[in-house]
Amino acid sequence: MTETMKQIALASRPKGAPTPENFRLEELPIPTPAEGEVLVRVHYMSLDPYMRGRMDDSKSYAANIPVDGKMEGGSVGEIIASNAEGYAVGEFVMGGFGWATHAAVPAVGLAKVDPKVTPITYSLGVLGMPGFTGWLGLMEFGKPKAGETLVVAAATGPVGSMVGQVAKSLGLRTVGIAGGPEKCKMAVEQFGFDECLDHHAYDSADALRDDLGKACPDGIDIYFENVGGKVLEAVLPLMNLFGRIPLCGMIAWYNETKEVDAGLTGQQIWRHALVQSLSINGFIISNYWDRMGDFHKAVGPMIASGAVAVQEDITEGLENAPDAFIKLLTGGNTGKAMVKVI
Amino acid sequence: MTETMKQIALASRPKGAPTPENFRLEELPIPTPAEGEVLVRVHYMSLDPYMRGRMDDSKSYAANIPVDGKMEGGSVGEIIASNAEGYAVGEFVMGGFGWATHAAVPAVGLAKVDPKVTPITYSLGVLGMPGFTGWLGLMEFGKPKAGETLVVAAATGPVGSMVGQVAKSLGLRTVGIAGGPEKCKMAVEQFGFDECLDHHAYDSADALRDDLGKACPDGIDIYFENVGGKVLEAVLPLMNLFGRIPLCGMIAWYNETKEVDAGLTGQQIWRHALVQSLSINGFIISNYWDRMGDFHKAVGPMIASGAVAVQEDITEGLENAPDAFIKLLTGGNTGKAMVKVI
Repeated sequence: MTETMKQIALASRPKGAPTPENFRLEELPIPTPAEGEVLVRVHYMSLDPYMRGRMDDSKSYAANIPVDGKMEGGSVGEIIASNAEGYAVGEFVMGGFGWATHAAVPAVGLAKVDPKVTPITYSLGVLGMPGFTGWLGLMEFGKPKAGETLVVAAATGPVGSMVGQVAKSLGLRTVGIAGGPEKCKMAVEQFGFDECLDHHAYDSADALRDDLGKACPDGIDIYFENVGGKVLEAVLPLMNLFGRIPLCGMIAWYNETKEVDAGLTGQQIWRHALVQSLSINGFIISNYWDRMGDFHKAVGPMIASGAVAVQEDITEGLENAPDAFIKLLTGGNTGKAMVKVI
Repeated sequence: MTETMKQIALASRPKGAPTPENFRLEELPIPTPAEGEVLVRVHYMSLDPYMRGRMDDSKSYAANIPVDGKMEGGSVGEIIASNAEGYAVGEFVMGGFGWATHAAVPAVGLAKVDPKVTPITYSLGVLGMPGFTGWLGLMEFGKPKAGETLVVAAATGPVGSMVGQVAKSLGLRTVGIAGGPEKCKMAVEQFGFDECLDHHAYDSADALRDDLGKACPDGIDIYFENVGGKVLEAVLPLMNLFGRIPLCGMIAWYNETKEVDAGLTGQQIWRHALVQSLSINGFIISNYWDRMGDFHKAVGPMIASGAVAVQEDITEGLENAPDAFIKLLTGGNTGKAMVKVI
């Protein structure tokens, strides 16, 4: 009897928002690790907005997933067979195992995770890629200074909540934007934002801007950008001279099927960048892995002290990953989205 | 008999491109310098694209000119009466004397110019604000490295030609964009660009991009932005990973009467900034006057050695300033535009 594993493939490319039909659950034999490889039994799998871009065939910063190919993503799991020196059965590792219960992968490049030190889910969230994205973008491109004002959207997400908490600890005024009153409550109570605005409550960028202006009486010095769309349109005119915009995502635009966004023209962005002397820096976190050690050194103690709170949104079962991912793209999650696979 | 002077006032705000009717030539008595002031007889007056923004009443980085107010601008002239210690009759000074034959202004803040060292027109062009803008933006935000490729539009203008020549001297491949075959010839022969494309020859950003791609076989590392519009749209997809865009102007958009520019959306700019990890920095040169000394130290010797060429486009007579300015905004000038007032 051959043991089988499960994985989820890209059945078809989405037009606009993904639907369950774009995914396909497959069953196939568990592979045998080749020389230098380990076989990993995945415990937790991460769901992140960037995965939406991989489902398209447009140019992006990473290769696209081919139709019928396995959905990609980071996971953490246990080595259950090893054909690689230095990687023992029973050890936990993090890597790009995709949307799957098992994966045989080269051991080189896998990060070991010690469940005795921190819960293994941390390696996918608060101490993993999303938390690192927030910290790196804020410190490297946001250049925070005490007394300044920072705005970040998706304020209860794993990126936004890290940005807000690190900025707060550095003495900035932090204003979050989130979807719904519950998330706004959590942003303030759990993640220490000075204020949080519910973007669902505003039907236009102008209306959102009015209240944002009140929440930021001294203007905005740093806008950590991970959403684009209406929030960006509201924020831009409020940016102070020499404001900084680290840009790591634009989830509001990921599901757009047409390029034209009448609400915000290229000319308007350019005019604000010029008139307010803005510094806008796009960045892809995978180009900064060498800074991961600095990140753990800075933020590890903040988790231990409670200055950085952990909020995870865990879905049970690989077969439910597509629904959880679709929900993530419309802001339906609360905290770092992941799937418990085992 | 009271001696009179001439000045040009803003008669009305332009809608789109300025017309001669937006200006008014006025004659008024020559003022007497108050305590601490000097009376300057203007010799040369600068014409620069930024002046277009001052004619509007929209928010900009500097105060707008009131209707019926004197047109503003930098000039160089001779002190013909002094009521300020340390400023003698016969000395030459540079300052914001406006579009006028004479001005009585506070002596504090006026930069002295020595006609024995360099021609006084240099202080308005190659060694003045426009040349300084090109050098500062390139060095501070362009971060040029030998072997990289730089693109700049308005390549024969005082900003673009400085950018191209300094970049060339640092070992970059330089590709200019200019309006018309004569300017392109000048860009290559006089300013040392490796190639220059005539943007009049392309009726779409896509067509311009095709040829730009051929002129930049290794992609574009630095796009020095002073025009916006079609050129920006052509350039963005060609930017390399970690590309830099110093942004000091957007002349192609100055005369636009509506904000919507269907050719380039905010979303597109954001997507390129993210996917290509671009660094976009808007800057206003007046925030960097403290670097002027560094600039003169770096570029002065390059002018002396011929590595930086000087090209001036001088119009005779204050009364012809409006026409020369209108021509400037459509690229009708060749080299640094100025008006000989005396």
